[in-house]
Amino acid sequence: MYKAYIISTGTELMLGSTMDSNSVFLSEQLAAAGIKVIGKSTVGDSAEYIRAAFENGVNMADIVISSGGMGPTSDDLTKEVACAVMGSEMIVFDEEVKRLEDFFRRRKRSMPECNLKQAMFPREAKILKNSRGTAPGMYLKKDGKVVILLPGPPREMQNMFSNEVEPLLKQDFPAVNQAARKTIKVLGPGESQVEEMLGELMHAVDGYSLALLAQDGEVHIKITAEGKELLDSQEILAGVLKQIEEKMGKGIFGYDDDSLEAMVGDLISRQGKTLALAESCTAGLLAKMITDIPGSSRYFWGAVASYSNDAKMKLLGVRDATLREFGAVSSETAAEMVRGIIEKSGVELGLAITGIAGPDGGSEEKPAGLVYIALADAGSCWVKEMRFVGGRDAVRILAAKTALDLLRRYLLYGGLQ
Amino acid sequence: MYKAYIISTGTELMLGSTMDSNSVFLSEQLAAAGIKVIGKSTVGDSAEYIRAAFENGVNMADIVISSGGMGPTSDDLTKEVACAVMGSEMIVFDEEVKRLEDFFRRRKRSMPECNLKQAMFPREAKILKNSRGTAPGMYLKKDGKVVILLPGPPREMQNMFSNEVEPLLKQDFPAVNQAARKTIKVLGPGESQVEEMLGELMHAVDGYSLALLAQDGEVHIKITAEGKELLDSQEILAGVLKQIEEKMGKGIFGYDDDSLEAMVGDLISRQGKTLALAESCTAGLLAKMITDIPGSSRYFWGAVASYSNDAKMKLLGVRDATLREFGAVSSETAAEMVRGIIEKSGVELGLAITGIAGPDGGSEEKPAGLVYIALADAGSCWVKEMRFVGGRDAVRILAAKTALDLLRRYLLYGGLQ
Repeated sequence: MYKAYIISTGTELMLGSTMDSNSVFLSEQLAAAGIKVIGKSTVGDSAEYIRAAFENGVNMADIVISSGGMGPTSDDLTKEVACAVMGSEMIVFDEEVKRLEDFFRRRKRSMPECNLKQAMFPREAKILKNSRGTAPGMYLKKDGKVVILLPGPPREMQNMFSNEVEPLLKQDFPAVNQAARKTIKVLGPGESQVEEMLGELMHAVDGYSLALLAQDGEVHIKITAEGKELLDSQEILAGVLKQIEEKMGKGIFGYDDDSLEAMVGDLISRQGKTLALAESCTAGLLAKMITDIPGSSRYFWGAVASYSNDAKMKLLGVRDATLREFGAVSSETAAEMVRGIIEKSGVELGLAITGIAGPDGGSEEKPAGLVYIALADAGSCWVKEMRFVGGRDAVRILAAKTALDLLRRYLLYGGLQ
Repeated sequence: MYKAYIISTGTELMLGSTMDSNSVFLSEQLAAAGIKVIGKSTVGDSAEYIRAAFENGVNMADIVISSGGMGPTSDDLTKEVACAVMGSEMIVFDEEVKRLEDFFRRRKRSMPECNLKQAMFPREAKILKNSRGTAPGMYLKKDGKVVILLPGPPREMQNMFSNEVEPLLKQDFPAVNQAARKTIKVLGPGESQVEEMLGELMHAVDGYSLALLAQDGEVHIKITAEGKELLDSQEILAGVLKQIEEKMGKGIFGYDDDSLEAMVGDLISRQGKTLALAESCTAGLLAKMITDIPGSSRYFWGAVASYSNDAKMKLLGVRDATLREFGAVSSETAAEMVRGIIEKSGVELGLAITGIAGPDGGSEEKPAGLVYIALADAGSCWVKEMRFVGGRDAVRILAAKTALDLLRRYLLYGGLQ
């Protein structure tokens, strides 16, 4: 598989207020073209640092592709530095001078002297047209390496990549290696637990690799299969997918772009049911997650965020005696909350969450992170005690997602799995 | 000025689907600490490329700071590689082993063998506590360079940076460049509108610069004043601050790290009042935002997320006739929602939101983005019609924040400003 290295230049990228969207675009495009991005570098407008980035890139990769620093001003240094690193001398291209003069004539302005450097390239370079600005790009193939220089403004860069760079890349780097990819998403076990469950599969070498990514309580298992041809890759992928599915079982809630919210919404909807919530410590977070999905009004009735005990009693009919005897964070209160919302709403499915999100409010007996989740249908009610570890945000997110996942398992397999 | 180099590791960052938000956060924080970021590098989970990035960073900068690759699994390589580059041998820290064992014991799980490597550090390193996960960070000062390793999950990384890294950086790299900074936060006008309102102030050159950052409906005006000494900078800052405050007036809701949620919570609390919500299109989002603030139970009663009309009637007493005559998205329904929640809860302050978040559900008369926000106290009720532009998420966030801001203005200035 061919390797690419991406460089973004621009002092504004060093300050944090500007996102480097160019490298994201280029990563996606290169991955789609079957080229592996092995690294990215972002540097300010300094010849020394730009040079280090290009040297590093040319050392490691087959293709170095940069954006930015192609303008006419004195802090636009990319082309100069890149050509020096490649040992290529620049000359003036007469047709480029004409093009620039035309550009300015059409705008009824005279061309500033400094723009002349935009007409200079190595003799062996291909000049890439910029249909949206004055700065042309450059495609230089030399000593088995390709260096591609693009302008910084995203509109110009993206356009130039699609129209000028892609055809050249296809020609010089035919996608010999057709990788097949899939992501499996699980909730429940942590990253290291998933690695243990996968065991030998993590270290197998026959044509595929696994990467784990932990995100808001979810673990994503990213599979990349690489065979000689796309068909081989797909076959390898299908094989390893089956093995992982056997090991992770009911813990898998989705694939690729699936979200837990959308998956559960789809299940509720397909079973013709409606859901109502009673949330205490998450206080609207789960309702917000469910309604992030357009069209959720088909299966979502609404929620009560009963943050205070008074709200639990007035809106859900939780008994004062229950709160006093067992406390707001208890299995008993969770059960009364979920029964209360089922009764109020008259819908088929209810979920209730009560817990201590922290950082304050915990005790030795009931520490921050203790959460009760209750699930009820017309006939039955289940309560599960969870002990989450993490800060306030983490506990709330884990509580909301675990509640959703319990509902998913109930809808797929019945009861509380 | 001290120089820093930022490294982000993770194969997922090479694919384009994951934004490298960590390097953006670190850039901002380092700039604020008076440290100049001279470059960034992003690499996959490969020892060879991570090594190249660290070597490059140590060559160019005083401080190399990385995020990612600190987990327990076999593709977490950052610490190993960074220590090799620095020529530091790692040993097992017994207290770290205990901490990990405790972590797993509390979760009633046994510790996977692979987690042991999270307890290994060079003898000369400072171990950085991770209050939100298992992976500790590392601060290594050696041969005039500092290498800082942080975990990849943004919540863990940001927390560790603020609590553990900042104090060490302040000590080792006192800000020689005495700039004074302040951020003013406004809600309401867009970025270009704020630019217009600021007028000449945007382009002034006498010792300060302004940068605008639009974020979730808020606009942040970032002021950097640079005089010869810190006292000069502070004087320049005070002057421009006063001018901006005059121009932005009541639109300013806070400064620097202030959040709208916390500012409003503080106001309600100081006036000894309690708030209850009725949310339709935002369906829990505003309740979630308010309860993101620890201690919000002091002034937040709870909320009803009345997503369906049935919930509006059953939980809030909105009349069927009102819904049929004016529709769920109407000034009349918003008013009945807010009166309903005030009656139900018996608290002093109520907010209600009903609108069309989109993308579907809109009509020519009532397009997506149309939102009614109602505010009520014991005696009065106000309703405001808003027309937001943007996708589903943007409309929901703008609706929730605008509701909060109306409450802020009511609490500060009375009525609906």
